Amino acid sequence: MTFSITARDTESQARTGVFTTDHGPVQTPIFMPVGTAGTVKAVHQRELETDVNAEIILGNTYHLYLRPGLDVLQRAGGLHAFNGWRRPILTDSGGYQVYSLSNTRKIKEEGVTFKSHIDGSKHTFTPEGVMDIQRVIGADIMMAFDECTPYPCDYTYARQSMEMTHRWLDRCIARFDATEGAYGYRQTLFPIVQGSTYADLRRQSAETIASKEREGNAIGGLAVGEPAEEMYETIELVNGILPADKPRYLMGVGTPANILEAIGLGVDMFDCVMPTRNARHGLLFTTAGIINIKNEKWSRDFSPIDAGLGGYASTFYTKAYLRHLFKADELLGGQIASLQNLTFYLWLVRQARIHIEAGDYVSWKNGIVGQLMQRL
Amino acid sequence: MTFSITARDTESQARTGVFTTDHGPVQTPIFMPVGTAGTVKAVHQRELETDVNAEIILGNTYHLYLRPGLDVLQRAGGLHAFNGWRRPILTDSGGYQVYSLSNTRKIKEEGVTFKSHIDGSKHTFTPEGVMDIQRVIGADIMMAFDECTPYPCDYTYARQSMEMTHRWLDRCIARFDATEGAYGYRQTLFPIVQGSTYADLRRQSAETIASKEREGNAIGGLAVGEPAEEMYETIELVNGILPADKPRYLMGVGTPANILEAIGLGVDMFDCVMPTRNARHGLLFTTAGIINIKNEKWSRDFSPIDAGLGGYASTFYTKAYLRHLFKADELLGGQIASLQNLTFYLWLVRQARIHIEAGDYVSWKNGIVGQLMQRL
Repeated sequence: MTFSITARDTESQARTGVFTTDHGPVQTPIFMPVGTAGTVKAVHQRELETDVNAEIILGNTYHLYLRPGLDVLQRAGGLHAFNGWRRPILTDSGGYQVYSLSNTRKIKEEGVTFKSHIDGSKHTFTPEGVMDIQRVIGADIMMAFDECTPYPCDYTYARQSMEMTHRWLDRCIARFDATEGAYGYRQTLFPIVQGSTYADLRRQSAETIASKEREGNAIGGLAVGEPAEEMYETIELVNGILPADKPRYLMGVGTPANILEAIGLGVDMFDCVMPTRNARHGLLFTTAGIINIKNEKWSRDFSPIDAGLGGYASTFYTKAYLRHLFKADELLGGQIASLQNLTFYLWLVRQARIHIEAGDYVSWKNGIVGQLMQRL
Repeated sequence: MTFSITARDTESQARTGVFTTDHGPVQTPIFMPVGTAGTVKAVHQRELETDVNAEIILGNTYHLYLRPGLDVLQRAGGLHAFNGWRRPILTDSGGYQVYSLSNTRKIKEEGVTFKSHIDGSKHTFTPEGVMDIQRVIGADIMMAFDECTPYPCDYTYARQSMEMTHRWLDRCIARFDATEGAYGYRQTLFPIVQGSTYADLRRQSAETIASKEREGNAIGGLAVGEPAEEMYETIELVNGILPADKPRYLMGVGTPANILEAIGLGVDMFDCVMPTRNARHGLLFTTAGIINIKNEKWSRDFSPIDAGLGGYASTFYTKAYLRHLFKADELLGGQIASLQNLTFYLWLVRQARIHIEAGDYVSWKNGIVGQLMQRL
């Protein structure tokens, strides 16, 4: 993977860049729609490419490992061949899902034993195993196996967990470097900074992760309930240590405001379930603000969902029609709202790139963030 | 509405034609996807036009009357403006839903009183009221208010119900002819033949309906549980009486085999929830036969869903991927399957038109029906 920075903001740490994988280039800052089980929920692959303009999507190792399973994915020729998505894919390590979804899990030095949320069957994820799984899935960007600590987290647990995550990282790197992609294209491995909200741990973790000199680096363990200010302080601290010439990926974040702030702190890559999950509950992100489309006030509003955003779903359908679909529990409601929110998120990072290049990122961000986050 | 017959089969009653509405032409024989509450479930309007190639869709008066309601539809400028579907729309009269969905309903000469399945509120549908409602919805083709008898149905009830349906028809026609469309384009009214499976009643009803000289006629009360042979005999009898120069619409039918047989008996228009409802349960109609995509046998079948059909959903996605989506309860599964089944149904009637024009309809039908109905 190659990464080149194409513009730097002078008033913040924001920058634009492009990284290139064997499945094509990705412009940064970028938002990556979450495709948990090999599908971005309620959205066709064609729509992701041509309406949403997604450049890279996520897959979840935990979900894909359980269903459809490695045998199916291997026979298919990897996830790209399986789901037909031709652009880059990033897979998480499965760690987060194991902690949050699995019925019971036991964390040991060797790895994590857990029960499937589907059938209760018992499985073990080790750092080496998770590398092997992600080789089979065939994501362009693989993530190291880490422990994501909850918030709040006591200092001793956070430190011990971070140290284990670092030891696991060495095992991940050893396995990754000793193996090859299964399908003829290159894969890369991103390590993950942990350390909860403790500055000294975050500093230590960032230095450790930076010292591995991988092609990109991630910040984990944020957006787990801590105040936004603590998150921003942690990002600032960590980004001051992580190499500036490698992409920085802030995992699982966040609201439009979170994303714009984090871009200003030098983050290049984002993912979050918020646009798709909120969409299925009728919560829309628009260029004019946030809309709960189920509200009675939209029932006779025949204006487009988001004329300012453009694109099919946002301009073809009206607010009144979309509200009706939600009130009637019609599947098309979630489909339209998912397109709206994802198109908005990709618009947001595209606007960020434009304003970084134009040299007015901070004033643009400060001017628009209130508008984007207001409830209409 | 104008209707012209463009070809007649010499070995059967099959014919091709085209009817023209103010929202454009419809080639017959045609299948009309069911858009119950103003949406063909899980399918975008754009997909209906460009992938499915639907020429006309249905709306359900009962559902639209309850939700979004007449005030919203009127302010929107009718259903076309409300949901963005630019081609023709046909609405049923609400009768069928009142009998099958409403908690309690009381049928009297004046009309039907029923309770909403949504909130239990009490409503009355009369022949006049249902005309007014369909004027507000603004369908190109409106249906008369009838009683659809169940199967089996005793003779006396069937006769009395048919006679009331005929009296209701006169009231529908009087109201329809005394009113105008609300949105500047023409609407037309189709009466409905009833009479259960009794030949003398069906003959009497067909004669009554034919005598009204409307622009098209419908056959109701079939596909309610009677053997297919009884259905075909009834269609043959009725079509021998209904005018040959008007389109004939067989309501709520049916399987691919039902449709091909009925086309051979001179039917021009069809609607059925089967393609979309079955799709959401993982049952696919394909050019090679019927597939239960949830079956284990498809888990490693990486061939396109239906290469013979062509089009996006059928050729882009594989059987193994679609199976995975259904096993994982992913919304995209129902979306893909709905596109597949609707595209297949529109393909089926297009093939019928081609073979009627080529003069080999009966031999083509007899050759392909076994293939289409076999379980793969």
